[in-house]
Amino acid sequence: MLRTHTCGELRSTHVGEVVSLCGWVDKSRDHGGTLFIDLRDRYGKTQVVFEPDAGAELYAEASKLRGEDVIKVTGKVIVRPEGTRNAKLSTGDVELQVTALELLNKCNNAPFSPSQQDLPGEDLRLKYRYLDLRRSEMQKTLVLRSSIIKAMRDYFEENQFIDVETPILGRSTPEGARDYLVPSRVHNGSFYALPQSPQLYKQILMVAGYDRYVQVARCFRDEDLRADRQPEFTQLDLEMSFVTHEDVMSMIDGLMKKLAKQFLNIDLQLPLPRMTWDEAMERFGHDAPDLRYGCELIDCTDLAAKCDFRVFKETAEQGKKLRGICAPGGGKLYSRKLIDELTEFVKQFEAKGLAWFRVEDDGKLFSPIAKNFTEAQLEEFKTRMQAKPGDIMFFVADTWAVSCKALHNLRKKIGVDLKLYDPKTMNFSWVVEFPMFEYDAEEKRWVSMHHPFTAPRPQDLHMLDSDPAKSRAVAYDLVINGSEAGGGTIRIHDWQVQQKVFGLLGIDEETAKNRFGFLLEALQFGAPPHGGIALGIDRVVMLFGALDSIREVIAFPKTQKAADLMTEAPNLVDNKQLRELGIKLASADKP
Amino acid sequence: MLRTHTCGELRSTHVGEVVSLCGWVDKSRDHGGTLFIDLRDRYGKTQVVFEPDAGAELYAEASKLRGEDVIKVTGKVIVRPEGTRNAKLSTGDVELQVTALELLNKCNNAPFSPSQQDLPGEDLRLKYRYLDLRRSEMQKTLVLRSSIIKAMRDYFEENQFIDVETPILGRSTPEGARDYLVPSRVHNGSFYALPQSPQLYKQILMVAGYDRYVQVARCFRDEDLRADRQPEFTQLDLEMSFVTHEDVMSMIDGLMKKLAKQFLNIDLQLPLPRMTWDEAMERFGHDAPDLRYGCELIDCTDLAAKCDFRVFKETAEQGKKLRGICAPGGGKLYSRKLIDELTEFVKQFEAKGLAWFRVEDDGKLFSPIAKNFTEAQLEEFKTRMQAKPGDIMFFVADTWAVSCKALHNLRKKIGVDLKLYDPKTMNFSWVVEFPMFEYDAEEKRWVSMHHPFTAPRPQDLHMLDSDPAKSRAVAYDLVINGSEAGGGTIRIHDWQVQQKVFGLLGIDEETAKNRFGFLLEALQFGAPPHGGIALGIDRVVMLFGALDSIREVIAFPKTQKAADLMTEAPNLVDNKQLRELGIKLASADKP
Repeated sequence: MLRTHTCGELRSTHVGEVVSLCGWVDKSRDHGGTLFIDLRDRYGKTQVVFEPDAGAELYAEASKLRGEDVIKVTGKVIVRPEGTRNAKLSTGDVELQVTALELLNKCNNAPFSPSQQDLPGEDLRLKYRYLDLRRSEMQKTLVLRSSIIKAMRDYFEENQFIDVETPILGRSTPEGARDYLVPSRVHNGSFYALPQSPQLYKQILMVAGYDRYVQVARCFRDEDLRADRQPEFTQLDLEMSFVTHEDVMSMIDGLMKKLAKQFLNIDLQLPLPRMTWDEAMERFGHDAPDLRYGCELIDCTDLAAKCDFRVFKETAEQGKKLRGICAPGGGKLYSRKLIDELTEFVKQFEAKGLAWFRVEDDGKLFSPIAKNFTEAQLEEFKTRMQAKPGDIMFFVADTWAVSCKALHNLRKKIGVDLKLYDPKTMNFSWVVEFPMFEYDAEEKRWVSMHHPFTAPRPQDLHMLDSDPAKSRAVAYDLVINGSEAGGGTIRIHDWQVQQKVFGLLGIDEETAKNRFGFLLEALQFGAPPHGGIALGIDRVVMLFGALDSIREVIAFPKTQKAADLMTEAPNLVDNKQLRELGIKLASADKP
Repeated sequence: MLRTHTCGELRSTHVGEVVSLCGWVDKSRDHGGTLFIDLRDRYGKTQVVFEPDAGAELYAEASKLRGEDVIKVTGKVIVRPEGTRNAKLSTGDVELQVTALELLNKCNNAPFSPSQQDLPGEDLRLKYRYLDLRRSEMQKTLVLRSSIIKAMRDYFEENQFIDVETPILGRSTPEGARDYLVPSRVHNGSFYALPQSPQLYKQILMVAGYDRYVQVARCFRDEDLRADRQPEFTQLDLEMSFVTHEDVMSMIDGLMKKLAKQFLNIDLQLPLPRMTWDEAMERFGHDAPDLRYGCELIDCTDLAAKCDFRVFKETAEQGKKLRGICAPGGGKLYSRKLIDELTEFVKQFEAKGLAWFRVEDDGKLFSPIAKNFTEAQLEEFKTRMQAKPGDIMFFVADTWAVSCKALHNLRKKIGVDLKLYDPKTMNFSWVVEFPMFEYDAEEKRWVSMHHPFTAPRPQDLHMLDSDPAKSRAVAYDLVINGSEAGGGTIRIHDWQVQQKVFGLLGIDEETAKNRFGFLLEALQFGAPPHGGIALGIDRVVMLFGALDSIREVIAFPKTQKAADLMTEAPNLVDNKQLRELGIKLASADKP
């Protein structure tokens, strides 16, 4: 090594030793002819000192150093003079009295400095990603990511899982999201697809008897990117044989307990709390509720039916729902102007309006629509909503689905506005028993809520014929702070049930055989009962690192337009390459 | 869990317990009305017993079971009767007296059985890969692979490496092998490329200050497949800052010592032996010599120059080489017929012929060309080659390059034919100081022997201008049993040297800027000296598992035509998908 120690290593026990350090010039300052440089590497910072009597040439060389230059220094470790020790720095008791300096590489006119206070815009940070990655926050995050993944691997090894790599060059199946395709050179006209997940491979591994499989798997979806999505992402993927949902969930419970202890110093109580999907939708309007605060959705449809206010009454008569949430202490914050903004806000989620009642100091309800209700009716609403003076109640009268969507988002907003929870707290829970299917109004057909390989609850098997909408799956989502951190299911291991589910999804026998023939065969050649789960590692690291953007937890992320600004991918390629692949650009024919 | 224990778990300490096992029916036999079934899972086999007095219904159900059916059995663990214990089985002291049987899944007419003696052809094994993967040999291999990779990760974590994931959707750079391309939907006409290795990303991580990076990385090459190649493969990829080649090599030395001890129970002596590329080519004709046996190449050009045999003499006069190997004890095996075959064999490697001399019992040399030499000359050859009675010497008179290629391959063949080494021994070594460049006669230009980012030895830097062919790189290949297990180099961290090397490779400034601009910039913004290595994990597992084919160490390999026979990838896709990607099939225009 060019160095004897890292920049985070020297302590008072090293005093007197002659050592060499390598690193980046972080800050430098001249105090009365003595030059102090903070030398930085991944491990920390050390103060290195160039004294005038160490030689004019050395001092002159050192004076020319600028931020981010890469240097090697050699010298003696000395105690810092009394009063100049830096308790904030792990190496702050000592400094290095430099006797030799080697400039390893110059940093010339970098577009920004990793130690500057105000960061430049994200595009510049992505273009010069190596400068951005040199920031200590980014280094901390990527070290956290590496450590979390290592802790996961250790945990699953202890639990006798086998790490198996599944192919990246796979088969395109038009179920689910859009595939990334890879044209084949050997088989012109055919394409590989990058995997959206190793779902079928891991099921095949169970059929092959591997019993417990785990993989940190790269997955790909060619979708228009939302803020927290990337074209390629990483999931902790696992599968177990001869298990029930209890076994998979308790395996993940144990993992979360370990990670929470190791990285957040939180002692989780196991088992993690569980809630059915029905309950989550009823109480929170969403299948990944944030349980760090209350402010639950409360159904008042029965009260609406009894009152004379037309909008409410008709809601009940039409089989729609009147549901509300009570914002504790929100009466003061939410002025008329802000309430108007909230009304616009819920309209984004298809609600037609937002009714509200403020509880005044005397307990009376104030609302522009109050005059439509009797005193007793108002009192009933207040009681049902458990509203207290200073609170404000909001109501959405609409279909169940719209009220879920609108009130869930309103609840999230209110939680932040009213600081209803400490953002540092962490909440882990499960949502279970999802519906097998949801109706896709656009495509006018049933689609799987998880995926087509999900097993129905045994007691719901008969409903596949009679009432598929009511059938519930053996499915479980891990929710952390209102984010879906992972989702899993017990899989179908009976080929006839699988065939039936394909049928319900509108995949006829021939299509099923064509796309999933190998699975249907595998289920007939000795498939054990099995199930598994996948956790979004990017998401987990974001949550554990209290970060806002997925691009902060990925070393080389892509923009929302799926571009890598540093390498300038995707890029144009030679015609020769396309010819070999048997493809041409659609635009090539245009004049 | 559906089971209380695995099939590899029960011992005499469990006797008396009521347990449940799940697994596959391996073998069954009926002894006088009692049915014995070997139940199998990944962990082992347990004998489960259905006795007639356990109930006629249970017995009847059990009698219907066939190989590979998946069952659950419950019963009491009992000691096997004296004389029926099976010492070969870890569970062989006990058996399970079954009281309840549940058929979890039937196996119907599988195309082959994982326990059958004669395996079907590889195509059938790949099509029904889950049956093939159920074989205990395959399970053992994939467990070995998982364990080796875990041991690698543990080692690098102990050595403070950070595991960083680099993108799979990258930029196409036409250096090196052919890229797999991924058409972009958002940027029609542009393409991502799957990485041939994370080379530039890991260098960028060093510039970003990550100091020690490691990744088990998936890599892709769209090349015509040889027996031991796959379109996607896995490498252990690492990079270190502020290091010399000594540091990288000693890091890998330590890894090999750990792996050899853990998986082969071999104590490696460190440092592993090293040989320069020049020496390897001179002594073995190859840059990855198998050091498990001698039989080295010996140069006799000086002797050729002195003799009157025209072929030899002209070889020396034309600046070519006469080199030979002595096959110890080969005089008997290699009959005239077999020697003719060896002659044909070396012609595959461009040699024009093969001269040979057998040492007879009396020490005299026998050869069809012996008459062209004096006794003294023959004696000189024998002495130079250290040939003894019973040996046979082979000579190739040709260019240095052809003699290397022909004699290296001949040496390999002789090593196997004469059993010159125990195939169970393992030999680890380094080959170092490769040439920077080799001349590509076809393309009529210099190409990098490793890659364009490889640093020349400091003492050879000046030769880049004067005599690039002579310059040697700071490069090191790990060789195990004559296979290249990995290769690494110290990288160029000076952008001007990098620019110069690009120039020598015929990449002009503009092209370099276009393709590698971000690297050239990064080298100017604070790049530390750095270097690394990549090991082929598939190859390492093959060598550690003593396996012949790379397809035996990959769960879902592709055929030599790059197809997945199980999922039938690559496959045809919808025109809609192609339209979205802005491409069409070249064949689409044909009538």
